[in-house]
Amino acid sequence: MTTPDPAREAPATHRFSVRVYYEDTDFSGAVYHANFLRFMERARTEILRDRGVDQGASFAGDATETFGLVVRSMNIEWLKPARMDDLLTVESRADRIGGATLELDQRILRGDEILLTAKVRIACVINGRAARLPAGLKERLANG
Amino acid sequence: MTTPDPAREAPATHRFSVRVYYEDTDFSGAVYHANFLRFMERARTEILRDRGVDQGASFAGDATETFGLVVRSMNIEWLKPARMDDLLTVESRADRIGGATLELDQRILRGDEILLTAKVRIACVINGRAARLPAGLKERLANG
Amino acid sequence: MTTPDPAREAPATHRFSVRVYYEDTDFSGAVYHANFLRFMERARTEILRDRGVDQGASFAGDATETFGLVVRSMNIEWLKPARMDDLLTVESRADRIGGATLELDQRILRGDEILLTAKVRIACVINGRAARLPAGLKERLANG
Amino acid sequence: MTTPDPAREAPATHRFSVRVYYEDTDFSGAVYHANFLRFMERARTEILRDRGVDQGASFAGDATETFGLVVRSMNIEWLKPARMDDLLTVESRADRIGGATLELDQRILRGDEILLTAKVRIACVINGRAARLPAGLKERLANG
Repeated sequence: MTTPDPAREAPATHRFSVRVYYEDTDFSGAVYHANFLRFMERARTEILRDRGVDQGASFAGDATETFGLVVRSMNIEWLKPARMDDLLTVESRADRIGGATLELDQRILRGDEILLTAKVRIACVINGRAARLPAGLKERLANG
Repeated sequence: MTTPDPAREAPATHRFSVRVYYEDTDFSGAVYHANFLRFMERARTEILRDRGVDQGASFAGDATETFGLVVRSMNIEWLKPARMDDLLTVESRADRIGGATLELDQRILRGDEILLTAKVRIACVINGRAARLPAGLKERLANG
Repeated sequence: MTTPDPAREAPATHRFSVRVYYEDTDFSGAVYHANFLRFMERARTEILRDRGVDQGASFAGDATETFGLVVRSMNIEWLKPARMDDLLTVESRADRIGGATLELDQRILRGDEILLTAKVRIACVINGRAARLPAGLKERLANG
Repeated sequence: MTTPDPAREAPATHRFSVRVYYEDTDFSGAVYHANFLRFMERARTEILRDRGVDQGASFAGDATETFGLVVRSMNIEWLKPARMDDLLTVESRADRIGGATLELDQRILRGDEILLTAKVRIACVINGRAARLPAGLKERLANG
């Protein structure tokens, strides 16, 4: 009898804090809608950093390869506004890890209130071309 | 026999030009993904301006009412990158005009190449609360 | 004989960390020059927050007053570029606290390297008009 | 007797229009202070484009050379706020064209009202290193 591995059954949720500053708001008083995408991208960069992936440098054993993750599509729902000085949490969870693409569920909360939900599809790009996700990265993402 | 009204059968497509500057790009060399949402919002502001709607001021006959359109959801596909100095076109077409929401098809092109497509759902907000689209605005949007 | 008050003789330097993300860079590979001003503004907001000033809400004992600090002028020198993933420090020091204006020395470092220096003159605005700095705020700023 | 060359005596002023959108404003209701620097950079890019300089591509007869202008310093005065929907003009005038640096006077107006003035020092960078301004560019800048 094997003990179930909870990390595989329920992939870890990554949490990242974002403070709202003047630059994030617009004259309506709330955070400008496109700036939530910047917050989600910061969280994705931190997920890769936590797993040892440096998007600014090379990856996968060959110093001449440049590696990046590129957003292919998003389904986003803006549910409630965020305001100046709010301390938000970006929650990210790998939903499906395919050969060359990665699906993330991301949402942005203020305390327990969900302000935004997004389903994000990301592709792996090596030297500017679509490529399979390196095996090492897949494992690191799957194991939270 | 009635002559079909082409404006109602095939709603007018609004076209708006955007030049790509340094500020729009990131170190990957391409336009930062979230900045395409800024381009689409500029186009929506120009559609309203063309139809005589001033989002910064009041609307609909009552000077004490503040009127705004708020993005509720988007389905976005990023198909190809845009680059520094590119001259892009944002095409917008009203897809469905409901009582309190508006669905737009927006896409971003460089010449004939489609770089991004988006289905955008927008709600009308008056004095900070969801409200029905004013009748005058509905007609102006429907007639292109 | 009085003991010198070190906080008055050498005003405290406030330090604030900023991580560089995709959104901050441009296609040259470095941080876009104007984005350093956003980093300095975040630091100023944190200075006020540390001293109990909420720019989003009212200030100074009268709930109907809205308080803000507005940048009047800057002398900025960009010395070296910052890059994706850099962890920067914004250092801020009150240089001169006048009746209605405040002069700050701000600089941005990566480790020991100084990337940018700025002399920033800020005015106090209450209910949208230039106003004297509230006495409580002056003391809190002077004492670091 | 020589006829004075008016282009040299009073260098041409370059004018560039900028519309203010949601993205440019913050919750104070006015344009975010750092965004004026984006407007001035757009104008500088257009000056170079008008003079046949493509910052995204190579310059000066050698296809392997990448050419760019980098901001070294600015003295900026913010005089009056700009608002959503404002149509602004960025005026730029070459003040001093040196061997490796260029000084511009830039200002931002709404109609006749001056909202911002800036003295901007720019350096020429070829292949990532400070370099002399190419002679062709100097002449094109000097002659407006």
